[in-house]
Amino acid sequence: MRETTITLQPPYLVFFGDIRTQMNAKTGLGLVQWAPDRCVGQMNIARCTVESGLPEMSVAEALGAGVKTVVIGVAPTGGQLEETWLPPLLEFASAGVDIAAGLHSRLTDIPELVAAAGDGGANLIDVRVPPTGLPCGSGRRRTGKRLLTVGTDCSVGKMYSSLALHRELLRRNVNATFRATGQTGILIAGEGIPIDAVVADFIAGAAETLSPDNESDHWDIIEGQGSLIHPSYAGVTLGLIHGSQPDALVMCHDVDRSFIKDVSTRLPIPALDEFIETTLSAARLTNPDCICTGIAVNTSTLSENDRARYLADLQQQTGLPAVDPVATGTSAVADYMLERFA
Amino acid sequence: MRETTITLQPPYLVFFGDIRTQMNAKTGLGLVQWAPDRCVGQMNIARCTVESGLPEMSVAEALGAGVKTVVIGVAPTGGQLEETWLPPLLEFASAGVDIAAGLHSRLTDIPELVAAAGDGGANLIDVRVPPTGLPCGSGRRRTGKRLLTVGTDCSVGKMYSSLALHRELLRRNVNATFRATGQTGILIAGEGIPIDAVVADFIAGAAETLSPDNESDHWDIIEGQGSLIHPSYAGVTLGLIHGSQPDALVMCHDVDRSFIKDVSTRLPIPALDEFIETTLSAARLTNPDCICTGIAVNTSTLSENDRARYLADLQQQTGLPAVDPVATGTSAVADYMLERFA
Repeated sequence: MRETTITLQPPYLVFFGDIRTQMNAKTGLGLVQWAPDRCVGQMNIARCTVESGLPEMSVAEALGAGVKTVVIGVAPTGGQLEETWLPPLLEFASAGVDIAAGLHSRLTDIPELVAAAGDGGANLIDVRVPPTGLPCGSGRRRTGKRLLTVGTDCSVGKMYSSLALHRELLRRNVNATFRATGQTGILIAGEGIPIDAVVADFIAGAAETLSPDNESDHWDIIEGQGSLIHPSYAGVTLGLIHGSQPDALVMCHDVDRSFIKDVSTRLPIPALDEFIETTLSAARLTNPDCICTGIAVNTSTLSENDRARYLADLQQQTGLPAVDPVATGTSAVADYMLERFA
Repeated sequence: MRETTITLQPPYLVFFGDIRTQMNAKTGLGLVQWAPDRCVGQMNIARCTVESGLPEMSVAEALGAGVKTVVIGVAPTGGQLEETWLPPLLEFASAGVDIAAGLHSRLTDIPELVAAAGDGGANLIDVRVPPTGLPCGSGRRRTGKRLLTVGTDCSVGKMYSSLALHRELLRRNVNATFRATGQTGILIAGEGIPIDAVVADFIAGAAETLSPDNESDHWDIIEGQGSLIHPSYAGVTLGLIHGSQPDALVMCHDVDRSFIKDVSTRLPIPALDEFIETTLSAARLTNPDCICTGIAVNTSTLSENDRARYLADLQQQTGLPAVDPVATGTSAVADYMLERFA
């Protein structure tokens, strides 16, 4: 996988720049939440309010702790790296420590940083930039099992649900790997392919590359992107579905979302049972046995009683486990999946 | 459209290199067939058997004839430009004549050519390289009418059918534009976007850009790509469908094709009426009124009698005009389309 996926070397120092609120620290805090064993320290040059729970480190302390990669854990307004962050980053790069970021602006467009990395032998890793050498999809079936999260829209919890289900499977000693397709997921997993950034011809091929042949009892839990009913991104979603060849889908949804977000036209989200069938039809092109093994809903806008009623109704209507990964956990989905594939 | 589509300036000289058979001259011969008014001459440095019907010209003659773009009309084995072709191309570039090609290797990777083009003020146009600055799809409905060709597989005649239907509409004085999405189509149209080469996130946005707002009686005839049931390229197809927001689809097929070509798995092509419904469902996300206005089949492997019977059966089964664009023309599809949208 080396040439065709992005790879980050742990341990990480999580870099919060000089931000003064948690607001823009989502990436770094997600990293600490989901990959605590990869993170050994944090740096906030303003020594302010971001509380990741990691020890604050100087450059010298981080080098002493054997940090291999500094991950930019902050999303500044405008997506540009701030001038004031550069001095410590230059020190790290000169010392041979890789710098990884998922910013809109590229690390490799900052000449001083490129020079320092060249001197130190460090890599500058822009996780929004896809690896080269991806093939077109072949449609060849692969060994091992795969679960893909899909959704009714963007930002309905596909990454969170994938990570939560992956963690639940590991807790049960299931042989499973989280496969990242977006920038935050890639930082958390330490590898992956930013699927929406690959050239259109290679979407399915990138998805095939991301989850290669594996042991027959191994599960890849693949982070979904977009939605088949999103007028901007459905092509990405379909290519990811076809290339993933999922044995199982988990449908993600936000109970508060009735229409596709951020588009010019008012596009209603269909009933979940109907949309699950539509998505399964698409998935069965490359895996005729694909089934849906659960529904993961963000119900944070509901009261506890309303949540319980909503999830019970959904479960009855679809015959599938319906969970809120944050409020109820993904245990019911894991049960159902393991039973169906026993 | 300037910044977000590729544009070629006519008149063209069609460059056939030094090939000795028609075999590899498909691009150039297609160009002469479909855009005769853009082509003023040809050059074959071996002065061999390619017979485009255009006058053979020297560099001086071509410059005298006011040629603005030299189009490489030959696909050499391996997709590389041959060393022996370079001298005349350098002369053209130095004289300020643009060079356009759809080869695998890029013109801009040939240092001598880049230098000559710099001196002469010429553009090197690789039609496989997408324009920059494409937006994400917005889903916003646009004025004017659009027809998109779709297909059961790659290479089933989507470009040919689009061009033939476009020509038929012009013959009837219908206000229509052919919109190219592949390399040969772009050379023929003189503009377009190579949709399979754009970054995945921008497929639908590129398709939206390609067919902008237009007069209410204007038809864009959009060249389709891939197939919704092709495991390698369906993402491209879906994004193109969503961004095109077609009012009408024409389904293209090859009567000799029962399985998707060139993939590892044996994937049967479904019945056409069923597959038309599947494709319409996808299209109706961004244009709820989309209908299918005909079926275009390559029936070149059938006898005349068998062709007539096959097309009549298909027409009866689907209630749609079924034509072979080469053997029968597209007139029946144009009739049906104009009647339905009268």
